[in-house]
Amino acid sequence: MFSSLELQQKVQQLFADENFLHEPRQLYEPIAYTLSLGGKRIRPFLLLAATDLFGGDIDMAANYAIGIETFHNFTLLHDDLMDRSPIRRGQPTVYRKWNDNIAILSGDAMNILAWRYFIKKQHPNLLPILQTFEQTSMQICEGQQYDMDFETRDDVSIPEYMEMIRLKTAVLLAAALKIGALAACAPDDDIQNLYQFGINIGLAFQLRDDLLDAYGDIATFGKQTGTDIKDNKKTFLYLQALEKADPSQQQLLTSLFKTQPDNPQQKINQVIDTYNTLNIRKDVEERIAQLHSQAATCLDSIHRPDEAKEVLRQMAAKLLDRNV
Amino acid sequence: MFSSLELQQKVQQLFADENFLHEPRQLYEPIAYTLSLGGKRIRPFLLLAATDLFGGDIDMAANYAIGIETFHNFTLLHDDLMDRSPIRRGQPTVYRKWNDNIAILSGDAMNILAWRYFIKKQHPNLLPILQTFEQTSMQICEGQQYDMDFETRDDVSIPEYMEMIRLKTAVLLAAALKIGALAACAPDDDIQNLYQFGINIGLAFQLRDDLLDAYGDIATFGKQTGTDIKDNKKTFLYLQALEKADPSQQQLLTSLFKTQPDNPQQKINQVIDTYNTLNIRKDVEERIAQLHSQAATCLDSIHRPDEAKEVLRQMAAKLLDRNV
Repeated sequence: MFSSLELQQKVQQLFADENFLHEPRQLYEPIAYTLSLGGKRIRPFLLLAATDLFGGDIDMAANYAIGIETFHNFTLLHDDLMDRSPIRRGQPTVYRKWNDNIAILSGDAMNILAWRYFIKKQHPNLLPILQTFEQTSMQICEGQQYDMDFETRDDVSIPEYMEMIRLKTAVLLAAALKIGALAACAPDDDIQNLYQFGINIGLAFQLRDDLLDAYGDIATFGKQTGTDIKDNKKTFLYLQALEKADPSQQQLLTSLFKTQPDNPQQKINQVIDTYNTLNIRKDVEERIAQLHSQAATCLDSIHRPDEAKEVLRQMAAKLLDRNV
Repeated sequence: MFSSLELQQKVQQLFADENFLHEPRQLYEPIAYTLSLGGKRIRPFLLLAATDLFGGDIDMAANYAIGIETFHNFTLLHDDLMDRSPIRRGQPTVYRKWNDNIAILSGDAMNILAWRYFIKKQHPNLLPILQTFEQTSMQICEGQQYDMDFETRDDVSIPEYMEMIRLKTAVLLAAALKIGALAACAPDDDIQNLYQFGINIGLAFQLRDDLLDAYGDIATFGKQTGTDIKDNKKTFLYLQALEKADPSQQQLLTSLFKTQPDNPQQKINQVIDTYNTLNIRKDVEERIAQLHSQAATCLDSIHRPDEAKEVLRQMAAKLLDRNV
C-alpha cells in the first residue's frame, strides 16, 4: 500500500514524464499548456488510490490515470471557451491565449488523446473500463448542457440542481475510483460501493465549491469571491435561499440575479446579506456533512481492512473541509 | 457476399433503426439532426464491404460502421463551426441553426458517442480496432490543423498539401476498410494492402473534390462552383498552377488569392482561365488516374477471389469518376 504522499508523487511523476508536444505545434501546444497548469490532480489520485486499495498494480493503472486527467482538462478547456472564462489556474485560458478555433480543435484532440491512454494495453476488464469511461464522458456533456439550460430557466429545483452537479462533477470522481477498482479486478459489490462513495464526495465537493465562491477567501481559494453571484449562477446557495425566502426576499434575489452591474460588489454584498439572514451557510454545511457521512458509510461497507481505506478517507476529508 | 445495393441498404437501415434523441434535448437534437442529413455514407459502406470481403459477419461489424459515420459527422459539425460554413447538405449547419456553444458541446458528445458504438461488445480484435480508430481520429485533427495553418502560409508545397489531405480525408476511408477487415479477422498483409487501397482512393477522392469545385456543375455537384477560389483555399489545382506558372501568372494568382471581392465571379473566371491556360485540369485528372491505378494494384494483391473485390472496385470507380 502507498501513502497519500507517495500516490501524489506518483501522479506528479506521470505527468512530468509524459511528452504532449508533437506536430503540428498549434494543435499540441494548447494541450501541453493546459496539462502543465497543474491543478489538484484529484481524479488520477483517486484512480490510483482505488487500484491500490484492492491490491492492484498502480503502474498498470497509470495510463488510465493520465487518460482521466486528460479528459478532465479537455472538459475545462471547452467549458472555459463556452463560458468565456478568461483565467484558469491563474493563467489565460486557451481561447484567450490562442483563439476560438484553436480551443475547439485542440480540445477535440485532447478528448481523443484521453482515449489513447485507455487503450494502450490489453486488460481483462478493458471493456467495462472503457464503457465506464464512455458513459461518464457523455454524462459530463449532459451535465454541462443542463448547466447551460439552467442559465435561462427561472424554475430550477434543488433536485434538478443536484442531478446537474452529479452529472457535471460527481460522476467523474466516482468513475476515477471505479476504473481504478476495475483495473485491480475488485469484486462487483465493492466497486458499486466505491462508486457511490465517489458520487457522494463529488456532490459534497461541488457544494463546498458553491460555498467557497460566496464565503471563501480569495487569497487562499485563488478565485474571486462572489463570481457565481456576479454571473447570476443559480448555485445550491441561491436555490436554497429562494426556497426559504419570504416574498420580499424572493423578489430581491430574483431581481438581483437579473442584473449585470459594472461594479458588482454592492450586489454581491446584498445577496450574501440575504444568505446570512436565511442561514444558508449552515444549511449547506449540513448538506455537505450529510453527504460526507453517506460517503463514509459506502467506504465502510467495502470488504477491505480499515487501515487500507485511510488514504481515501483522508482525501474525502481534505476535499470537503478545504478552504481552497 | 452482399451486392453493393444490399450493403447500401444495410447502411441506410442501420441509421434508420438508431435513436439518437435523448435528454437533454439541446444536446442530442443537433446530433440527431446532423446524422439525419444523410450524405453518401461512404465510410460505413466501405467498413461493411471490407468485413464482407473477408467473409466476416457484417451484423457484428455494424456498430463500428455506425461509430465511424458518427465520428465523421462530428468532424463535419466542428469543421463547419471553425470554417463558419453556413450550409451542409443543403441545410443550415448546427452553429447556424442553434449557436456556437451548442455546436461545440453537441460535437463533443458526438465524438464520445462514436466510441460508444466501438465498445458495445467484446471482439478478439477489439484493441487493434480501437487503436486504429483512435490514431485515425487524431490524424484527422492534425489534418484539420494543417489545413488551418495553410490558410496563413504562402509557401505550401504540393507534398505538404498531399500529406494534409492524407490526414484530413484519406486516413478515415482507409481506417474504415481496415476496421472492417479487422472485424473479419483478416490476415495482416491483406489488411495493410486494403488500408493502402483506402489511402490512394482517399487522396484521389479529395483531388476529385478540388477539381469539381473549379469545374463541377452546381446542379449535379450540389455545391457552389468556385467556392475554394472565392475563399482563397490553396487546393491542389492552385498549388499545381503556381508551380507551372510563369512569373506574371504567379503574380496574378497570388494577388487574386489575397482578395475577397463581394462579387467573386470575375475573380473565379480569371483563376479558372489561368488554370485552363496551364492545363491544370489534365494534370489533376492524371494524378487521380495514377492514384486510382495504385489503389487497383493494392486491391489486386489481396488474397481474395477477384469477384469478391468487385464491390470495392466499383465503389472506387464511383468515387473517382463522379460528377457529384
